[in-house]
Amino acid sequence: MPKNAFYAQSGGVTAVINASACGVIETARQHPEQIGTVYAGRNGIIGALTEELIDTSQESAAAIAALRHTPSGGFGSCRYKMKSLEANRHEYERLIEVFKAHDIGYFFYNGGGDSADTCLKVSQLSDSMGYPIQAVHIPKTVDNDLPVTDNCPGFGSVAKYIAVSTLEASFDVRSMAKTSTKIFVLEVMGRHAGWIAAAGGLVEDHGIPVVVLFPEVEFDQAKFLAKVQANVEQQGFCTIVVSEGCHWPDGKFLAEQGTRDAFGHAQLGGAAPVVANLIKEALGYKFHWAVADYLQRAARHLASKSDVEQAYAMGKAGVELALAGKNSVMPTIVRDSSTPYVWHVGSAALADVANVEKMMPKSYISEDGFGITAACKEYLIPLIQGEDYPPYKNGMPDYVTLKNAAVPKKCPAFALKK
Amino acid sequence: MPKNAFYAQSGGVTAVINASACGVIETARQHPEQIGTVYAGRNGIIGALTEELIDTSQESAAAIAALRHTPSGGFGSCRYKMKSLEANRHEYERLIEVFKAHDIGYFFYNGGGDSADTCLKVSQLSDSMGYPIQAVHIPKTVDNDLPVTDNCPGFGSVAKYIAVSTLEASFDVRSMAKTSTKIFVLEVMGRHAGWIAAAGGLVEDHGIPVVVLFPEVEFDQAKFLAKVQANVEQQGFCTIVVSEGCHWPDGKFLAEQGTRDAFGHAQLGGAAPVVANLIKEALGYKFHWAVADYLQRAARHLASKSDVEQAYAMGKAGVELALAGKNSVMPTIVRDSSTPYVWHVGSAALADVANVEKMMPKSYISEDGFGITAACKEYLIPLIQGEDYPPYKNGMPDYVTLKNAAVPKKCPAFALKK
Repeated sequence: MPKNAFYAQSGGVTAVINASACGVIETARQHPEQIGTVYAGRNGIIGALTEELIDTSQESAAAIAALRHTPSGGFGSCRYKMKSLEANRHEYERLIEVFKAHDIGYFFYNGGGDSADTCLKVSQLSDSMGYPIQAVHIPKTVDNDLPVTDNCPGFGSVAKYIAVSTLEASFDVRSMAKTSTKIFVLEVMGRHAGWIAAAGGLVEDHGIPVVVLFPEVEFDQAKFLAKVQANVEQQGFCTIVVSEGCHWPDGKFLAEQGTRDAFGHAQLGGAAPVVANLIKEALGYKFHWAVADYLQRAARHLASKSDVEQAYAMGKAGVELALAGKNSVMPTIVRDSSTPYVWHVGSAALADVANVEKMMPKSYISEDGFGITAACKEYLIPLIQGEDYPPYKNGMPDYVTLKNAAVPKKCPAFALKK
Repeated sequence: MPKNAFYAQSGGVTAVINASACGVIETARQHPEQIGTVYAGRNGIIGALTEELIDTSQESAAAIAALRHTPSGGFGSCRYKMKSLEANRHEYERLIEVFKAHDIGYFFYNGGGDSADTCLKVSQLSDSMGYPIQAVHIPKTVDNDLPVTDNCPGFGSVAKYIAVSTLEASFDVRSMAKTSTKIFVLEVMGRHAGWIAAAGGLVEDHGIPVVVLFPEVEFDQAKFLAKVQANVEQQGFCTIVVSEGCHWPDGKFLAEQGTRDAFGHAQLGGAAPVVANLIKEALGYKFHWAVADYLQRAARHLASKSDVEQAYAMGKAGVELALAGKNSVMPTIVRDSSTPYVWHVGSAALADVANVEKMMPKSYISEDGFGITAACKEYLIPLIQGEDYPPYKNGMPDYVTLKNAAVPKKCPAFALKK
């Protein structure tokens, strides 16, 4: 008898996490002798804990195929970190209770470092509880911070969006700089690692004087202002890409730099307006700033083709690993060559993935700390290669909203920890 | 003997103003018997005043063709408003002096309301000075506020970018809202008119609970918060699109709402963080906000096909009007039908265009002031229809940077007014 499968999306969603879902479900549907129904967690893992399962077999082949070109989490995602087995054993036991009730033998968990850890624990505990679950982690994170895999699905599309947006806005500023704006500051995601900010550095090769502010490099105000001034004096304008995680030597984020609203409340600002105002104060240049926020990670309209293909491939490979009897694993992307870009699917033991954060190598940041090196460009360019446009209808992308039909509950109710 | 032509870009640039330049230059090149060289103003009209002319005949056909898919102002633009004839007659006379020195008989000025006015005055004065110039205004503005023409090139692409970005970010928030962000605020351009903000309202028909804050509608905090709360309670989340020109009943912009940096300086904020914090204070919902700023008007990667075609057509028609002997005119877009979208090129006398600002009709804003009507949707949808992607190379758009070769000067130096 085939076992059913459970799939859930974890943490911040991306432009291509649904492409992984598409890869999982389409591949599972091709193996009805081994995999029964794919259930999805409504709003991620809390859908398993509360037994709010979605019956994906109610979705047409066309709807599932459309997930490939639809950003966001089609089944809902959540930020809900399961604590350690010791601290929270009953939550893990609950997961297994729900899986058992619905005859689920495969657990596909699509997320970053935390979900890899959860995945590993479910596998371990289920084994010891005598109800074995094959747990496979599907990599996803815009932050590109998972180890072992060369890169993470989700990152390539954000990188493309940031590189293209930085280029476009820089062209704009360049054409106005003579009499108007000379400084453009774009704030990008990345609290710990500067992978996304690094993508902004790619515009250097397109004739743009760009300064990148990484979370990995302590903000040196004097050196920064000197660099900006040199760029403006030599080229008439300057673009700055600042990571939200950029911080002062004392560790305080630039974004927390004392912005206050009329009531004296903090927390208004972003890093971009702070940087823009520092420049204005010191150098007097007219500025504009933008904060891309969710636009960057949802921008399926500008997804990288490499990224979409890899996201789908990771979902597909996850199912294939399970069908091959693997457990506690994650499919990975292995780079064979950068030029031309060649990669293949590998796999990693979850024990080597869980709770390890991959930082950007020091060799990727230029000596002055404000740009990226040739090695970084060689790494990044393949990941933003190719376009994979969604279909449009009446001028708008034709994204799918699933039916997300509920599966009848079989277990007692369960209260989530607050 | 053919006369030479002068082309200049004015004011804030757009994703498609270069497509108009392409239309002007390609069309002029097809009529060597009537039009000699097309000179462009380096950084707009100040290039004419200071006699910094660009010889566009030095650019290859391929480079000119590439302008069609390149955002920003390829020759540079400026914000330099020429004062009235009475106050500043010698600047107008200087223009004509430069035109005369370079045997320029055609003046193509690509901009908004101010440049239409300048164009009109040049035509009038040149006539009275005995050196007739055929002055043709080519419409351009993301603000969509020029009269007579049904819409302005530049607007359709911004509208598409805002509509698509709002949709994508809303999908993102929808999938996370159960445990995380429930409010997403996007700030868009439009200080006086809400055309761009209106485009965000299009996502309503894609299942998104959206609230639009227009500059045309005084901000009513209590009513706004009630609407947001109702959306969150009914649908779990709410998207807000706020125009930078949104203001309190006393006329003060939301963006000026007292944001202060650590030094007590104002001017940091945008409207988006102010709105997000108002919601947080009153309702406690977790929020994210984005400020699109230049990204929206430079986003050639997501240009509307209608918009690109019309931008090119306006440039082409401008030259054709001149060749037909017209003066003091502007080509216009005349809508014949919305569904299917059919339009043709018309023309308007500059006297009817200069210094008239087209506001959004009241009938386009929904009764509660927070959304758009069916009439508005019927107006907007044709303008965002179709995609017109630039070519890509190594993952990045292949935008052109022109040589912009200088034309030797013939006139005495001229000091610009500060």
